[in-house]
Amino acid sequence: MGQKNRIHLVTGGARSGKSVLAEKLVARLGGPAIYIATAEPFDEEMTQRIGLHRDRRGAGWTTIEEPRDLAGALVRSDGQGVRLVDCLTLWLANLEGRADVAALCHVLAAQASPVVLVTNELGLGIVPDNKLARRFRDEHGWMNQAVAEIADEVWMAVSGLPLRLKPQEHDFGRI
Amino acid sequence: MGQKNRIHLVTGGARSGKSVLAEKLVARLGGPAIYIATAEPFDEEMTQRIGLHRDRRGAGWTTIEEPRDLAGALVRSDGQGVRLVDCLTLWLANLEGRADVAALCHVLAAQASPVVLVTNELGLGIVPDNKLARRFRDEHGWMNQAVAEIADEVWMAVSGLPLRLKPQEHDFGRI
Amino acid sequence: MGQKNRIHLVTGGARSGKSVLAEKLVARLGGPAIYIATAEPFDEEMTQRIGLHRDRRGAGWTTIEEPRDLAGALVRSDGQGVRLVDCLTLWLANLEGRADVAALCHVLAAQASPVVLVTNELGLGIVPDNKLARRFRDEHGWMNQAVAEIADEVWMAVSGLPLRLKPQEHDFGRI
Repeated sequence: MGQKNRIHLVTGGARSGKSVLAEKLVARLGGPAIYIATAEPFDEEMTQRIGLHRDRRGAGWTTIEEPRDLAGALVRSDGQGVRLVDCLTLWLANLEGRADVAALCHVLAAQASPVVLVTNELGLGIVPDNKLARRFRDEHGWMNQAVAEIADEVWMAVSGLPLRLKPQEHDFGRI
Repeated sequence: MGQKNRIHLVTGGARSGKSVLAEKLVARLGGPAIYIATAEPFDEEMTQRIGLHRDRRGAGWTTIEEPRDLAGALVRSDGQGVRLVDCLTLWLANLEGRADVAALCHVLAAQASPVVLVTNELGLGIVPDNKLARRFRDEHGWMNQAVAEIADEVWMAVSGLPLRLKPQEHDFGRI
Repeated sequence: MGQKNRIHLVTGGARSGKSVLAEKLVARLGGPAIYIATAEPFDEEMTQRIGLHRDRRGAGWTTIEEPRDLAGALVRSDGQGVRLVDCLTLWLANLEGRADVAALCHVLAAQASPVVLVTNELGLGIVPDNKLARRFRDEHGWMNQAVAEIADEVWMAVSGLPLRLKPQEHDFGRI
């Protein structure tokens, strides 16, 4: 804890076990746990998903709902515990693909308490027909790259299993 | 063989070399090989794919066609050889996303002979517009997580190459 | 350089940092750098993407535009430097899914100077509704498998991070 492995990113596909892995990372870090939810319960499907996640986490978590001002939520909660941001994809979608990722990275790099962030991999299917979907996919990919670059640890969940992307043993891990 | 590495899961994208990798795992395990096909040849495209796979496997395989009662097929074939289940995705689709995954895992955990199962990763593209596709993707992801959890070995095929997801060296591999 | 690690393949999703990783591999190999562009600037969106990539590479690169005769471009440029082919997906699309992949692999295997090739992973999303998209996904996956098989090094970019697929430590890496 402290200076070591402060920023943790968990990426992966839909229903790949990202949130459970992120919760395990928070538990491993220890101390008070703060959940920063970026989801907006705008329809029944989303309300159900949010409820499922909340039930699984159980008691012992403080929840902050912040669909847009994620940097502000991080600044305000720093020093109060380990923050789990779930997730960057919804945050970017809430801001219609125009989030200030550089400002977020700046705030992340300055945090005193650890942060675990959840995101998605969206770019591994057939190219979407829809131009807006392609643009979102681009912005999302660039966001993931920027956050992964400043993260101390990056994991990818696949079928519920954690694959470590950073740090790695090979020489490109040090570039 | 025997108690060690009894349940093997091979996941990956479409045309990523999953079936070939699964066949290599079966060959490595040795002994009689039993192919449990969950595909239903309901159209010409699917009939062609089934034919391609069968031609590649060649002689020396017993084939069981079982699109729905996978647990039953495993129970009935136990003790007769190494089973290759190809694949879980079609099994789940044949059951319209409502397969009894817990019952399957229960049966898998009780098998005396090894089983190699093939599945797909479906959740790494843009969120589908279609609500049914989203629901199938959810059910499918949960199925993959459940089977990966009880599996002794999990591999992901990428461009024909095997990436080992379980067991792993890092500490989360032991959680 | 020379005989060691002559053919390098970089795969990954859209906006996963494939091209940057490929450029780092070229820099690591050293010597004159030749960019073989398969993109055709047929619309504004593609023209923008091509411009972004060119600006990032900067001076010191020779560019060859060759949307279809990739094997010919490799033969003609052999001995003149390290070639970066960006990318196989567009090459296959320009040839409407009917590229002569075996001929390409034959030419690759005979190159004296190193080649770094960029491709995409397309098969990890929900099955496309569109039959043509499914067929392209199939042809593309087979192409990736064929090139990965003859490659000396294969990397997958995820959120900008390099994951090594070949060579690997585990025993299937030697099959």
